[in-house]
Amino acid sequence: MPPSTKTPLSEDLKRLVGQRVAAVDTPSLVVDVDAMQRNLSRMAEFARKHDIRWRPHAKMHKSSAIARLQLQAGAVGVCVQKTSEAEAMVAGGVYNVYISNEVIAPAKLARVAELAHQAAAEHGQLAIAVDSAEGVRRLANAMDDRRRGGAGTVIDVFVEIDVGQGRCGVTPGRAALELALEIRKHAPLRFAGLQAYHGKAQHVRSPQARRDAIAVVVQDVLFTRKLIEAEGIPVDLVTGAGTGSMVCEAASGVFGELQAGSFLFMDADYAANERDPAQPQFEHALFVKSQVTSSGLLHAVCDAGHKSHAIDSGLPRVVTLPATGELEYANGGDEHGILRPTAGNQRVPHLDDTIWLIPGHCDPTVNLHNHMVGVTGGLENGRVDKIIRVDARGALT
Amino acid sequence: MPPSTKTPLSEDLKRLVGQRVAAVDTPSLVVDVDAMQRNLSRMAEFARKHDIRWRPHAKMHKSSAIARLQLQAGAVGVCVQKTSEAEAMVAGGVYNVYISNEVIAPAKLARVAELAHQAAAEHGQLAIAVDSAEGVRRLANAMDDRRRGGAGTVIDVFVEIDVGQGRCGVTPGRAALELALEIRKHAPLRFAGLQAYHGKAQHVRSPQARRDAIAVVVQDVLFTRKLIEAEGIPVDLVTGAGTGSMVCEAASGVFGELQAGSFLFMDADYAANERDPAQPQFEHALFVKSQVTSSGLLHAVCDAGHKSHAIDSGLPRVVTLPATGELEYANGGDEHGILRPTAGNQRVPHLDDTIWLIPGHCDPTVNLHNHMVGVTGGLENGRVDKIIRVDARGALT
Repeated sequence: MPPSTKTPLSEDLKRLVGQRVAAVDTPSLVVDVDAMQRNLSRMAEFARKHDIRWRPHAKMHKSSAIARLQLQAGAVGVCVQKTSEAEAMVAGGVYNVYISNEVIAPAKLARVAELAHQAAAEHGQLAIAVDSAEGVRRLANAMDDRRRGGAGTVIDVFVEIDVGQGRCGVTPGRAALELALEIRKHAPLRFAGLQAYHGKAQHVRSPQARRDAIAVVVQDVLFTRKLIEAEGIPVDLVTGAGTGSMVCEAASGVFGELQAGSFLFMDADYAANERDPAQPQFEHALFVKSQVTSSGLLHAVCDAGHKSHAIDSGLPRVVTLPATGELEYANGGDEHGILRPTAGNQRVPHLDDTIWLIPGHCDPTVNLHNHMVGVTGGLENGRVDKIIRVDARGALT
Repeated sequence: MPPSTKTPLSEDLKRLVGQRVAAVDTPSLVVDVDAMQRNLSRMAEFARKHDIRWRPHAKMHKSSAIARLQLQAGAVGVCVQKTSEAEAMVAGGVYNVYISNEVIAPAKLARVAELAHQAAAEHGQLAIAVDSAEGVRRLANAMDDRRRGGAGTVIDVFVEIDVGQGRCGVTPGRAALELALEIRKHAPLRFAGLQAYHGKAQHVRSPQARRDAIAVVVQDVLFTRKLIEAEGIPVDLVTGAGTGSMVCEAASGVFGELQAGSFLFMDADYAANERDPAQPQFEHALFVKSQVTSSGLLHAVCDAGHKSHAIDSGLPRVVTLPATGELEYANGGDEHGILRPTAGNQRVPHLDDTIWLIPGHCDPTVNLHNHMVGVTGGLENGRVDKIIRVDARGALT
């Protein structure tokens, strides 16, 4: 089971709701709820306009409360990467969950089968990706074991093809057809289509280069789909896309579902992409609130290091405020950030200054926190609207 | 309060104790308890030989259970970086705690004062670092407020000097004397000495270069100490040192206390240092157990990405085992690791293969996990000895 689902919110946290942002302790992960809602509306509108499903990746926010917001806005479900994340979603009342990743361990597959059953009982549908015949057979065994109790639950199974990421997935073409055939041998499995996600294309800076990369993906998918359909097997859905490339998949006519997750919060790495004109203008909605705790002649130090925000995709950017001016963040280790005024700004931050950071990468940043503080009315003068629990924080298995 | 202290261990976790390592789910953080105990003994012996106190940094393990083991082995207490970490230690029965960092927010200082009182009630002693007169005055105010209840608790205060890290701390010399004088104005504060930690020296690869760096630190400390003592103020203790440089501080005759923390678990980054002949031979004791979930022609993929281990100090190394041969780990994102056989090894890992990773950096890796699985009898064939709770996981404030 996911480790943090049942941790009660402390009384201190509950008391924070309704208070001014100034009352939020540092460092804390803060969500600008207004900006998040705008991002959500923009995504919903984009999907409607392109007549495409969206199943945002909950590996990013790990929160069933946010997943429910996404469903209300029109998402068909959520994606996750881990069985324990799926457990957190189902426990939180989210029943259309796609584990867009390979699961091999029989003990985990037993949990997947149990979840499929739980989801079906709530009129939901569990789905999973595969990239090996062995994985298909083990999944079928786990589902068979679960069905011995009498339930006729079916799990949706997507065949993952490697479209340039160089990670999981079979080679497009023949290998995918073989897996589709293998899936169809097993009654509790339904061949649901293809998973084709090109992770490496997401942060290619130029829109044209991203379009070029996804054009190749589309050819891989078309070729594979044709091969499978030639055997009389329908390919109901092609699923994939991230926030960086989603306009390309949406326009392809081949993809039926977008998995983009980061659009909801954005981060410094995605913001560094040159925006495709077709892309909605997503705003930053995730911040680390930090405080200056040491101030010297040439630099100051804030209380947020890389235990508060992930730096795998680069250091955070500092929000420029009138009080503090433009600042550069340098790595000060696990618990410290080093702040220097950049050209034009003469003012070294003072003790007590509030510093707002835009994390380099939202997904692993959220995973460092048990909760996010949802704020409305702006970062500086707003109020705490709600505490958003990160149900699946640390849900690794 | 620290967020995860009160999360109960799940029944599944409790049942794991006594079982073979094969039963440990992946990815999981595993401690080789035998290796950890050997590291602990080596550190205790080293400190005895050099007649120096050791107060290991609990920011690394964030576990009061491990802190208690360290106290049993002869440590005088533990260091932490955050108020909430200190709260987790005191809640876990560890009462000699040094917050080796600056705390500025009055609300946090009230918690520090409360902790000082709680620690004193258990015959412990709380300590904290300062690097500003404002910080000293606020600390004194918080202690005064707490003392109105009648308690005569005193907190130990170390003046931090910047000895090359370029982060917190005042310039060695006059500025430190001024802070010592400020501290002595306030009855609930005791000037306890100097904090002089050179973080940047810890991972300098050559032992001679590390010795050169710490030689400068020692000059800074001597100069500052002399200046303070010339005013008739005793400097009882100089505290500092990390695992990389500790042999230099221990041999200096100036430092009275070592703060090194990583020696207990070691990590790939510390192992990449050329070992000083004076340094005990610390072993790797912290591992991520992972499983191959996808296997292709040229590479395989395991289920541990950088949500399971921190990569701020480099990627993990793969333990070479007879079954899998020598492997290189490449970054596969938040949830995946990409494994390639290195020159000489022809075997691409198979589905189900167990992969043991040595994290690049132990501190932020531990912080990703709610618990560690303690194993005795070796990683491959040993048994689970205990579940070690990471009390202060996510304790950021």
